[in-house]
Amino acid sequence: MKKIAVLGAGSWGTALSMVLADNGHQVALWSHRKMQADEISEKHTNEKYLPGVTLSEHIVGTDNLQAALDRAAAVVLVVPAKAMRDVLKQINHCLKQPLLFIHGVKGIEPGSFKRMSEVIEEEIPEELRTAVVVLSGPSHAEEVSLCHPTTVAVASTDLVAAKKAQDLFFNHYFRVYTNEDIVGVEIGGALKNIIALGAGMLDGLGFGDNAKAALITRGLAEISRLGTKMGAHPLTFIGLTGMGDLIVTCTSVHSRNWRAGNMLGKGEKLDAVLNQMGMVVEGVRTAEAAYALAKKLNVEMPITSEIYQVLFDGKHPKEAVEELMCRDKKDEIAPLTHSLEEKIVREHEA
Amino acid sequence: MKKIAVLGAGSWGTALSMVLADNGHQVALWSHRKMQADEISEKHTNEKYLPGVTLSEHIVGTDNLQAALDRAAAVVLVVPAKAMRDVLKQINHCLKQPLLFIHGVKGIEPGSFKRMSEVIEEEIPEELRTAVVVLSGPSHAEEVSLCHPTTVAVASTDLVAAKKAQDLFFNHYFRVYTNEDIVGVEIGGALKNIIALGAGMLDGLGFGDNAKAALITRGLAEISRLGTKMGAHPLTFIGLTGMGDLIVTCTSVHSRNWRAGNMLGKGEKLDAVLNQMGMVVEGVRTAEAAYALAKKLNVEMPITSEIYQVLFDGKHPKEAVEELMCRDKKDEIAPLTHSLEEKIVREHEA
Repeated sequence: MKKIAVLGAGSWGTALSMVLADNGHQVALWSHRKMQADEISEKHTNEKYLPGVTLSEHIVGTDNLQAALDRAAAVVLVVPAKAMRDVLKQINHCLKQPLLFIHGVKGIEPGSFKRMSEVIEEEIPEELRTAVVVLSGPSHAEEVSLCHPTTVAVASTDLVAAKKAQDLFFNHYFRVYTNEDIVGVEIGGALKNIIALGAGMLDGLGFGDNAKAALITRGLAEISRLGTKMGAHPLTFIGLTGMGDLIVTCTSVHSRNWRAGNMLGKGEKLDAVLNQMGMVVEGVRTAEAAYALAKKLNVEMPITSEIYQVLFDGKHPKEAVEELMCRDKKDEIAPLTHSLEEKIVREHEA
Repeated sequence: MKKIAVLGAGSWGTALSMVLADNGHQVALWSHRKMQADEISEKHTNEKYLPGVTLSEHIVGTDNLQAALDRAAAVVLVVPAKAMRDVLKQINHCLKQPLLFIHGVKGIEPGSFKRMSEVIEEEIPEELRTAVVVLSGPSHAEEVSLCHPTTVAVASTDLVAAKKAQDLFFNHYFRVYTNEDIVGVEIGGALKNIIALGAGMLDGLGFGDNAKAALITRGLAEISRLGTKMGAHPLTFIGLTGMGDLIVTCTSVHSRNWRAGNMLGKGEKLDAVLNQMGMVVEGVRTAEAAYALAKKLNVEMPITSEIYQVLFDGKHPKEAVEELMCRDKKDEIAPLTHSLEEKIVREHEA
């Protein structure tokens, strides 16, 4: 039995706490809202984020970061991408010995366009972290809380650390795979939301399954191209955190990004859509980041580019689809294959 | 304008004929049933397979193979996998000059476990074929007949021939990509039906999106392992004919394989399911073929193996899921990555 600090008591942080408690660990679940922390400790519920679920007594809520981190064997960060750096700055003041950092955040830092593990490495000094691991995959929190079969990957450049994270979470309903490609896992998890916006648009336009499968597949192809340029292994995108997560996000009508895309496909404008949603639509922010990264790194991302134009230049989604269909004739995977072959040969000869 | 012979007037053969006619070609659409051929020529319909659709006058039905093939620039084979060899033997007697062979068949020959392009190469002498191309991808025929946006790949070891096929079919609603990996494209198209059976089972058991995304992703991982052993490039499986087609097949309730799997998940036995369906369930036959190939080539295919046991050994689907979730802890893509790196280095050094 270990003590684990889980920071962020949204639906995903709470579901991960339940997995850890089921595996016999003691969980300190931190929320910056005292009322929520008290509800978790006293009523063993988190009604706003996981309604109807009873939490284990081994999960204790707290709004005291120092108390959450004291004697913890690992910290699991599940906060919004834009809040990550602030939370890390606070953690810094609480740490006395190095800790294993695991995060379950799917997003890119606004403005800096940095991956979450990069932000962790920037903010936490090397002597205060043993390693950084990302946990990602196709995982609705509600289903995990019902113990429905779920698979995820834990990725780190430090395979021993990834295996430690695997040991913490692995059980009969939560199957955890290790992966050495943290860049690919983080990029796949973040950029999928752009494609989910596009999937909603296609459904809003009244197109069918063929179009959606094309969008998902060619969307992943361009995410792979960008990711590979940033140092990822292209085969990561065929895995749980790439294609797996993309499928769940693009085929679930519960996805916020899909719903926003759907309204755009029916002809509504972005401002009106965001007003109606009344909450953050991650894909919109990520589309901006990916569009900027593609330009900077000179990577062809035609789908991202069209979605960007629909979002920010008032282009009609139907026109975007027509332009995508009428592009030059292409080879399917040759560009990816060739860059991979060059990379492997280069590394082999080095 | 070219004359093209399309052999097989099911829904897919008819939809492909419509694409060719839209591109200005003259199509001879062959059916072995005279009544169906006459309906196509005279009424310009194919009510049984594409109800409610009007066919172009440039599509002429015929039950005469010789007439269909005379002066054709290419032949497009869209017959059931088990009928392929018989049709090829008949074609052999009709050919006077070499022809471009394109096929759109997703299956493996029963008994021999051979891919369709292998069967074509065995039956048609080299001097009577310029090249063999497979056309595959996520494509419900009904949506193609409505000109909804659709993408497919054409694969051949002969890239010039693949480009010829691309030119024949490419238009504003039917986007065609070339690919050099015919083995990967054929294996992906055939084996997806096993995973569709599994997707139906999970839904029948009442599990959620997480489980289905896991099945699709890990299912494709083991198809990739088998395909790579058979000579395919693993990146092909990230493409339209791998992941793209798999998504359409596993998320559409219209899929026969999904429906059969769904009944099995609800506890019915295979015999009863097949009796109720009253038609061929390709995935059942393909599961047998893949199970045999995996044993022969010594490839680990845990999902295929569990589905095989549910189909043929009376194992309960719930027990199969439990065994899959509780297997040893694994790395996600390392086995695939390592075999790919070895292959590329070997080829580079040769």
